[in-house]
Amino acid sequence: MTAPPSSSLSRTETLSLASLSLACVAVLANTFQGDGAPLVASLALSGLAFAACFALIRWLGPNFMRAGLKGVDLNKHRRREIPECMGGVCAVVYLLVVIVFIPFPFYKDIVAATSGGGNRDVVLQVEHVQQGRLLHRFPQGKLASYLSAIISLQSIALLGIGDDIFDIRWRHKFFIPAFAAIPLLVVYFVDFGVTSIVVPIQLQPYLGQLLDLGALYYLYMAAVAIFSPNSINILAGINGIEVSQSVVIALLLAINDCLYLLTPYPHPATDSHLFSLYFLLPFLGVSLALLWHNWYPARVFVGDTYCYFAGMVFVVVSILGHFSKTLVLLLVPQIFNFVYSAPQLFGLVPCPRHRMPRFNARTGLLEPSFTPWGPERQPRAAVARGLRLLGSLGLLAVRRDEEGRLVETSNFTILNLWLVWRGPLREDRLALEITAMQMAVGLFGLFVRHRLALLIFKEDNWSIVG
Amino acid sequence: MTAPPSSSLSRTETLSLASLSLACVAVLANTFQGDGAPLVASLALSGLAFAACFALIRWLGPNFMRAGLKGVDLNKHRRREIPECMGGVCAVVYLLVVIVFIPFPFYKDIVAATSGGGNRDVVLQVEHVQQGRLLHRFPQGKLASYLSAIISLQSIALLGIGDDIFDIRWRHKFFIPAFAAIPLLVVYFVDFGVTSIVVPIQLQPYLGQLLDLGALYYLYMAAVAIFSPNSINILAGINGIEVSQSVVIALLLAINDCLYLLTPYPHPATDSHLFSLYFLLPFLGVSLALLWHNWYPARVFVGDTYCYFAGMVFVVVSILGHFSKTLVLLLVPQIFNFVYSAPQLFGLVPCPRHRMPRFNARTGLLEPSFTPWGPERQPRAAVARGLRLLGSLGLLAVRRDEEGRLVETSNFTILNLWLVWRGPLREDRLALEITAMQMAVGLFGLFVRHRLALLIFKEDNWSIVG
Repeated sequence: MTAPPSSSLSRTETLSLASLSLACVAVLANTFQGDGAPLVASLALSGLAFAACFALIRWLGPNFMRAGLKGVDLNKHRRREIPECMGGVCAVVYLLVVIVFIPFPFYKDIVAATSGGGNRDVVLQVEHVQQGRLLHRFPQGKLASYLSAIISLQSIALLGIGDDIFDIRWRHKFFIPAFAAIPLLVVYFVDFGVTSIVVPIQLQPYLGQLLDLGALYYLYMAAVAIFSPNSINILAGINGIEVSQSVVIALLLAINDCLYLLTPYPHPATDSHLFSLYFLLPFLGVSLALLWHNWYPARVFVGDTYCYFAGMVFVVVSILGHFSKTLVLLLVPQIFNFVYSAPQLFGLVPCPRHRMPRFNARTGLLEPSFTPWGPERQPRAAVARGLRLLGSLGLLAVRRDEEGRLVETSNFTILNLWLVWRGPLREDRLALEITAMQMAVGLFGLFVRHRLALLIFKEDNWSIVG
Repeated sequence: MTAPPSSSLSRTETLSLASLSLACVAVLANTFQGDGAPLVASLALSGLAFAACFALIRWLGPNFMRAGLKGVDLNKHRRREIPECMGGVCAVVYLLVVIVFIPFPFYKDIVAATSGGGNRDVVLQVEHVQQGRLLHRFPQGKLASYLSAIISLQSIALLGIGDDIFDIRWRHKFFIPAFAAIPLLVVYFVDFGVTSIVVPIQLQPYLGQLLDLGALYYLYMAAVAIFSPNSINILAGINGIEVSQSVVIALLLAINDCLYLLTPYPHPATDSHLFSLYFLLPFLGVSLALLWHNWYPARVFVGDTYCYFAGMVFVVVSILGHFSKTLVLLLVPQIFNFVYSAPQLFGLVPCPRHRMPRFNARTGLLEPSFTPWGPERQPRAAVARGLRLLGSLGLLAVRRDEEGRLVETSNFTILNLWLVWRGPLREDRLALEITAMQMAVGLFGLFVRHRLALLIFKEDNWSIVG
């Protein structure tokens, strides 16, 4: 397991990837027989994405090292340099796949429309143009939102890679996702402009059935777009955790989508949820390939690129699918981690460069890492009270000297808190437990969303099936 | 002039850029008064792009050097390292500007449509949806092609930066633009599917008025997309030449667009040429900022990113505007350079790592660089005949020993050939002359396109004005 990382595929790996790819190509070719079957095509392309990403991560390792994209894994007995920023490979493979996929959801429409076909260089009669391919029958709105999603994802990939190369300061990089969200919001504005939300039953007498938030809705979307990528970037520091949490969230979003597709009658939001799947399935493909290499003991690091990219995939599907509230439900562990981190992020408590758990070389286990409080730099009274309260609630490990002065407190991350609760754990065990927690919280969130939503909203499709 | 490059703006520069930005913001704000005036807004945003790019190139220099993105300028007395790959900054600023610009061309349509506005989460009557904002009145096709252009440009930026970081091999990088053209071609397929060309009058009796090329047309577009970026990347090697040739081509394309906009009656291709301007103006903005820093003596290098990006901008506007033949006309010097380079690119003549002109440190001038032929590795007879022919036509400098054996021949690039013709020149003089030649050839090309096209095509709008 700790052999130096090889940059070539083993015989078994080559055979498995080749047969997976062949099967996917066969399935893909088959979708052209019927009416395009875009969901099947998306699945097949996701399989290809997995294979391509798996092989490229392995092959490009040495190139990344040579280009200086490398890092040291601190939580190991034998510290060695491994390639960093492999999320960039995932992003590029993913983008290629979703771009190649564009014709599939529109296959039926293309077949229906290709009888028309006008030449823009030639002066045509106005009637002809109006009934031609350009303006008629073709679901241009769907195409535009699909394209805007790709633009946002490409933007975050570009900016993320810039961040990984130039190591942008924390205060600045916080706003990187905001730039990447611009294309999404601009096209949302041009294309939909839906800024009204359904009002809970209890408030309807005062606000009406729909409330138009106007510009506030764009602020809300921008906030989600900034939060989601950053929150995944903050829940990091041990092998595999960035990817595994993203895989869980993508899986839960996909399950949520399937709930809408499996209704006995066509749901008005079916299209949105199909689109969401078209973006989530290839993401799962490339992420699983990355997870294989990033899981304990990691042979590659993912880089900020991956965290931003993953967060943006969720933002894109939930904003264009108009289910951003559901995304917020699935990000509960990330929200907790962010709120819990706030005292250090906003400077109430000193924030060291790294807050990842501490590796105990003797036991080989991870323990909570601590921030020291010198005897001369004790916290202000209000902060000290807060720390004492957190300590008594079991939300913080607090160490004091005989005179009651603070010696050190555990760092404010969910990973450290988990170790405070569960005691020292091996790195993969910690990642596994956090991932399981994310899954459980998310499933509960979906349950709440679909079962209990009826208490405050009048209509929800899923309720009728249940 | 040869002082070490400073990474801050001078007082004059700060004032100039600030007043330019202010003026542009004022103009931009003013466009909201009328019906949006997208062309004016595009001009204003291009001014802002110039200012932003100018400042960022200066400020980010040290960051690029620290990240290892640096190179040595070989054609100088004092060789020093300067930042490399600054085209990446241009590309990112450019992309941000064209993304922010999206609502402007659609301002009128948005105002007309915002009365509608449907909520996708709510079940609406079918009639309502049909007449609502989603399907009616809005020029979705225009939006989709605009977005696909952005995706192609982002793709080439991503891949170009990858090339600059990883130094991809020549044989592989040749196909980078093909990948970036995929989004364009896919959306072209989904959205227009126009694959017929107007047949010259002389051939119409045999082929009809329009000839549908089908899949061949996509091959043709892919070929243009691969050629344009690579041809600009090949015509490189002295300060400023990559940017100045791109600026000239962009200017000529913009002039061509204006010819269509200045007709006394609305031309059917007006929209295509407006769109072309929306992409060319910001490109001119960022390119001029880059040229300022890259002109002799260069304070930054542009990197492959810029060359690919510039070439792709031309591809995008000419394919979506359906005037790719005009682009080919404007690329005549690049085509000549490529054809002329072919003997070295395809291995008939040995190809050294660098074929840029040789710097004569004594005179401070550039001279043609030569490829040596050892006495034991003389070319094959056919090649020798070809070299002799080129030499006698004045298309190659050939040096022989007393026994008539080849000693060395000048490298096959247009820059070396120019020096063979014109004698040793200073670096900026050479760049200026090549740029002027590009301009003259391009203007002649446009003249041919608009005056002589009538000889072989039945209709051309510009002919009616002249």
